[in-house]
Amino acid sequence: MRLRHKPWALDYMKEQSSIYIADPSTLKGNWSNEFKNENPIYIEVGSGKGAFITGMAKQYPEVNFVAIELFESVAVAIVQKMVEEPLANVRVLTVDAKDLRDFFEKGEVARVYLNFSDPWPKSRHAKRRLTYKTFLATYEDILPEKGQIHFKTDNRKLFESSLMTMSAYGMTFDWMSLDLHANEPENNVRTEYEERFSAMGQPIYRMEATYTK
Amino acid sequence: MRLRHKPWALDYMKEQSSIYIADPSTLKGNWSNEFKNENPIYIEVGSGKGAFITGMAKQYPEVNFVAIELFESVAVAIVQKMVEEPLANVRVLTVDAKDLRDFFEKGEVARVYLNFSDPWPKSRHAKRRLTYKTFLATYEDILPEKGQIHFKTDNRKLFESSLMTMSAYGMTFDWMSLDLHANEPENNVRTEYEERFSAMGQPIYRMEATYTK
Repeated sequence: MRLRHKPWALDYMKEQSSIYIADPSTLKGNWSNEFKNENPIYIEVGSGKGAFITGMAKQYPEVNFVAIELFESVAVAIVQKMVEEPLANVRVLTVDAKDLRDFFEKGEVARVYLNFSDPWPKSRHAKRRLTYKTFLATYEDILPEKGQIHFKTDNRKLFESSLMTMSAYGMTFDWMSLDLHANEPENNVRTEYEERFSAMGQPIYRMEATYTK
Repeated sequence: MRLRHKPWALDYMKEQSSIYIADPSTLKGNWSNEFKNENPIYIEVGSGKGAFITGMAKQYPEVNFVAIELFESVAVAIVQKMVEEPLANVRVLTVDAKDLRDFFEKGEVARVYLNFSDPWPKSRHAKRRLTYKTFLATYEDILPEKGQIHFKTDNRKLFESSLMTMSAYGMTFDWMSLDLHANEPENNVRTEYEERFSAMGQPIYRMEATYTK
């Protein structure tokens, strides 16, 4: 996404300390205290402006959601949404996905969502794709045994490479659509990108992938 | 495919004993004698009228090909093609894929091709799909360790279910395209169905899947 730099974003978010977690390493192993309940925690890696995670949070109030968006200038849009319409079951972090082990214990995250992740189309950037094996290892270390990744994208080559890296990692695919909107599930929450690319007639790909251990 | 019954097909094929193998169980473990060389043997399960396997046989004369087509009224078209244009490296069988172990030793088949297989769209017919787990076990028993299936289809739901059954079987995907003709490999041999469905603008899906043991 094209980024407009917002130098005020970090200060603004820090003022919303019930929404934005400035230092999430202090919550490692303590997320249920932060949410004040024992509900499962689903994280979205690369939340963009947050249409998906806020939509999910409304649909599933019995689940806690953590939005992870590297760019402060983007994440601030999620915080702004929640200032206008508070959601007790969502928190926002601006951290790098490669560092997730610093913020969550093994099993503390019940599910990982990846939506319309940056495709990094060049082969020499394959390691930056959020479904590259090093990221799969990172998610595995914060998920329970047989944890799941739910992933959707409009980007064919990203989905193709993900099918290969995930199967090579030993994951199995338990749900699969190569044209999500041809039979859109009633509970599907669309992201900003999903609306845009679907309107352009591109198929949306979606999978649920499970770790085998 | 709609079948026109051809009562003469079997007698016609039996007369072409250098092409059609009427009793392939006699060749189990002896296929290199039949081909009179030690070249690898690739089989296609569900060859239809044989455009793919005859095209492949011309492109790869150093490989032996066995066309397997259950229906005599269809397989006869492959035999007729080869009467007109002989190919020393192709044989034709009319046997059921579930019985492949009766015709090939473990490791005697170097690769399995599945092209535009019957999708059997109803859930209660899932077991008939050529990528159902019982068929995957059958192919495994005639392939070498880490053997491969090369599979293409225009049928989205068949491809989706195959991604799930194959990953559940522990297979990995080493090559993947969700729109084969968007970047068609130079050596791609099109089947009759592939020409027809591609002309209709439908994406063609293709994978190479490898057994992990």
